[in-house]
Amino acid sequence: MRQRNKPWAREKLANYPQYIIQEPKEQKGKWQVCFGNNRPLHIEIGTGKGRFITGMAKQNPEINYIGIELAESVIVSALDHIIEEELPNVKLMNIDAAELREVFEKGEVDRIYLNFSDPWPKKRHAKRRLTYQTFLSLYEDILPPQGEIHFKTDNQGLFEYSLMSFSQYGMILKYVSLDLHQSDYEGNIMTEYEEKFSNKGSRIFRCEVQYR
Amino acid sequence: MRQRNKPWAREKLANYPQYIIQEPKEQKGKWQVCFGNNRPLHIEIGTGKGRFITGMAKQNPEINYIGIELAESVIVSALDHIIEEELPNVKLMNIDAAELREVFEKGEVDRIYLNFSDPWPKKRHAKRRLTYQTFLSLYEDILPPQGEIHFKTDNQGLFEYSLMSFSQYGMILKYVSLDLHQSDYEGNIMTEYEEKFSNKGSRIFRCEVQYR
Repeated sequence: MRQRNKPWAREKLANYPQYIIQEPKEQKGKWQVCFGNNRPLHIEIGTGKGRFITGMAKQNPEINYIGIELAESVIVSALDHIIEEELPNVKLMNIDAAELREVFEKGEVDRIYLNFSDPWPKKRHAKRRLTYQTFLSLYEDILPPQGEIHFKTDNQGLFEYSLMSFSQYGMILKYVSLDLHQSDYEGNIMTEYEEKFSNKGSRIFRCEVQYR
Repeated sequence: MRQRNKPWAREKLANYPQYIIQEPKEQKGKWQVCFGNNRPLHIEIGTGKGRFITGMAKQNPEINYIGIELAESVIVSALDHIIEEELPNVKLMNIDAAELREVFEKGEVDRIYLNFSDPWPKKRHAKRRLTYQTFLSLYEDILPPQGEIHFKTDNQGLFEYSLMSFSQYGMILKYVSLDLHQSDYEGNIMTEYEEKFSNKGSRIFRCEVQYR
């Protein structure tokens, strides 16, 4: 997601330490302390403007959420949502997904959401896709045994690739929908992107996969 | 596929022993003798009117094919194709898929094709779907280690179910296309059904899965 540069973004992020985790690596192994309870922790990688993660946090107050987003200029929009809703069970962090191992202990994250990740359609960029095997290995290292990834996208090529990547990594497909908005799946929280593109007629693909 | 009853069908099938295998169980372990060579053997389960299997046999003369179809009234149409084309590398048999173990030794079949299988959409009929776990176990017993199933369908519900069933059985998704006719897959042989429904705008789903 490209946005114009916002030089004031960094300052704003620093002004809300209750919502924006300032030194994520210092919290490794201590996330229950950080949230002040021992509820399950679900994270979204590439949280964008935060509509999904804040919607999930409202829908499921018994679960803690962290939205991860690399772009400062985007994560400030997610911050606005959280400030407005005053949600106690959601935080954001401004890191690169490649750093996840430095931020979470094995088993400290109970579920990972990937929504409308960058498809990187060129074959030579396959390694950058968030469902490439090196990322699946990274996620495995912070999830418990039989941890789950819930993934949705409107990009058919990325979904085809990801089904193969999950399978070749040895993961189990627990749920697949090839047309989410026409399915009987309940409780779907749409992302900003999802609403825009499904209104234009795009089909949304979704799956839940589990490590063995 | 429903067709009107054809009382003359059985007699016609008996008249072409070079194409219609009369006593399939007697050939178990001897299929290379039956074909007179040791080429790979690919079978299609639910061969219908036989356009796929005869098309494949023409396209790949170095492979032997057997089309399996339970309905006598349908398999006679497939026989007509073979008679017309005089193909030496394709035969048909009129058996139930549940009998496969009685007809083939372990490893005697090199690949299995499932095309537009009956979707049996009701949950209570899941056991009848040709991608249900008992069938996957049956196929495993006649394929070599790392044998493959190539599957296509226009039925979204059956494809979603089958991806999960393959995965939960421990199979690997080697190839997935969620819109075969818009993909770069080459050499696709259409079935009668596939041509009809894709002309009506139906999307065709296809995958190749491999036993571990």
